[in-house]
Amino acid sequence: MARGGGNRQVRYVRRPVGRLEESSFAIEDAPMPSPAEGEVLVRTLFLSVDPYMRRQMLGTKGYAVPLREGDVMQGRGIAEVVESRHPARRVGEVVFGEIGWRLYAALPGEALRPVDRSVRPLSLHLGLLGAPGLTAWVGLTDHGRPQPGETVVVSAAAGAVGSLVGQIARLRGCRAIGIAGGAEKCAHVVRDLGFDACLDHRAEGLEEALRHAAPGGVQVYFDNVGGAVLDAVLPNLAMGARIALCGMIAHYNATGPIAFRHLQSLLDNCVTLAGFRIGFVAPERRAAAAAELLDWFRAGRLRWRETVSDGLETAPAALVGLFDGANIGKRIVRVAPAGG
Amino acid sequence: MARGGGNRQVRYVRRPVGRLEESSFAIEDAPMPSPAEGEVLVRTLFLSVDPYMRRQMLGTKGYAVPLREGDVMQGRGIAEVVESRHPARRVGEVVFGEIGWRLYAALPGEALRPVDRSVRPLSLHLGLLGAPGLTAWVGLTDHGRPQPGETVVVSAAAGAVGSLVGQIARLRGCRAIGIAGGAEKCAHVVRDLGFDACLDHRAEGLEEALRHAAPGGVQVYFDNVGGAVLDAVLPNLAMGARIALCGMIAHYNATGPIAFRHLQSLLDNCVTLAGFRIGFVAPERRAAAAAELLDWFRAGRLRWRETVSDGLETAPAALVGLFDGANIGKRIVRVAPAGG
Repeated sequence: MARGGGNRQVRYVRRPVGRLEESSFAIEDAPMPSPAEGEVLVRTLFLSVDPYMRRQMLGTKGYAVPLREGDVMQGRGIAEVVESRHPARRVGEVVFGEIGWRLYAALPGEALRPVDRSVRPLSLHLGLLGAPGLTAWVGLTDHGRPQPGETVVVSAAAGAVGSLVGQIARLRGCRAIGIAGGAEKCAHVVRDLGFDACLDHRAEGLEEALRHAAPGGVQVYFDNVGGAVLDAVLPNLAMGARIALCGMIAHYNATGPIAFRHLQSLLDNCVTLAGFRIGFVAPERRAAAAAELLDWFRAGRLRWRETVSDGLETAPAALVGLFDGANIGKRIVRVAPAGG
Repeated sequence: MARGGGNRQVRYVRRPVGRLEESSFAIEDAPMPSPAEGEVLVRTLFLSVDPYMRRQMLGTKGYAVPLREGDVMQGRGIAEVVESRHPARRVGEVVFGEIGWRLYAALPGEALRPVDRSVRPLSLHLGLLGAPGLTAWVGLTDHGRPQPGETVVVSAAAGAVGSLVGQIARLRGCRAIGIAGGAEKCAHVVRDLGFDACLDHRAEGLEEALRHAAPGGVQVYFDNVGGAVLDAVLPNLAMGARIALCGMIAHYNATGPIAFRHLQSLLDNCVTLAGFRIGFVAPERRAAAAAELLDWFRAGRLRWRETVSDGLETAPAALVGLFDGANIGKRIVRVAPAGG
């Protein structure tokens, strides 16, 4: 069914080599889709912008639908049902799903999950109660296994996942030390998020700085970064330390090998390292995570920050910015104002 | 009490930088020790030569007694009690302990553990029933957690630990693939030890060779080596793989950083890696290991090979040889013939 105002979409047109650039994307007009039987037409409200997307563009196995050049860019979002040819979906519902980077999409009704539209902003469903929140809670709880009094270190501490990891660590009675890029982010992490300390990995001597900040050693390291930051944390690990390996953003853009000096610490300190991905986590752990996060948030015990840009056309720059260290908090693109 | 024939000892005299060399040691005459009250005088029968000793020479924390230049070289051994001033130790007993590299030693009676002298050769107490055997069994069982039908890969497959890991894997119903240096070792691993395959890491293309040998991916990697061999195994890991990190011999002699291309596999494949050291393993797991290893050995289901050299003066070359890839099986120095 045709509508007033056309559709627009972002296509993935050029495979990134090394640094991701906006030239990997093209923004264009597109036909307004018509839902087939069993489908619904949705209007995009918010899109989530996440580091895994770069890997999806390279076709890395297991990272959502592998993308090929020419495809409409995939991406999770929150949308409003504007027309339904599916028995369970009603016009006006707000849904979560793989919406893609477009103003309107026709999608199978069963691929969309209704969300509580009383939660405001609705973008919380993409962050605190979405993949970043669940990732932080599950990774720290099940892989980091922090005990009260232990020291928890998290990299990309100003990011969506990291900002929660340190706060959850403190709620569990631990000391939380963040690592972030630049003085502004570090100040935010300590002042706004309540971490005990935050170290700037762009400054010289991260390894020594962490030795001073955690003289008794690090019991839990939640890593979002890999690379040189991981290598600086390794010699500071305590005997029996746990590493929750959540991301390796320093490796995603790398085209050559990455040098490590201190991997031997994994052996010397009897370290357990667990790589994990939220898509492979059991539903009951995800549910436990969402419940406790929402409790904490409603009780005012968790701070949550979003960086929001307006308009579908800002999505490519938002994704590129994740890899340029420009981001604080959860990165969101607001595509259209929420109705209702 | 003075005896006929003098004592001799090996001292650690020069800290190794890069490659370990025999010039780190000096062999010399020494006074015959006299046991004080509570001590026993022992005559060394066998000495164990192990990779951890190089780390002990560098003072790495947790690796037995850190050595300083000038110290008599430490080392575990089997010895015979020739004089006792300790109520629980009897002349003629065979004991295990930190004997050190010397013909005779006076040691506290409670630092020595009597062993079954009917086990022959007595050197089995240093290998199959000692640290290497326990390390292989505990690392594979508790950290590798192999399931029947899975593929288990082990590096340094011709060495003391590795040769057992592959055989235990097969006894547990797994496919065992070894990695070793050179055609001779690889032939030994397949022909004598019964591994399903063995790959030569000195040949080109280890990563591709493993891809052909394990087309369904590697579920368990027992690593004794680290470095380039680990980097070649990483992209071949299956989803949910486990790495038992037992040794990183490629790192011990390294003076600079080591480059990795494929660490990201730890994340992509949700890999669990556990660094472990036998000294930190619970006594009940060590006991379970020794019992099952002895059962298998007595039933003729485990092959065990030792490389033995004769004379205290061969100990430095034996240790250096561990890092030159010259070794097959457990490295033993026979210091004196066993009596009785």
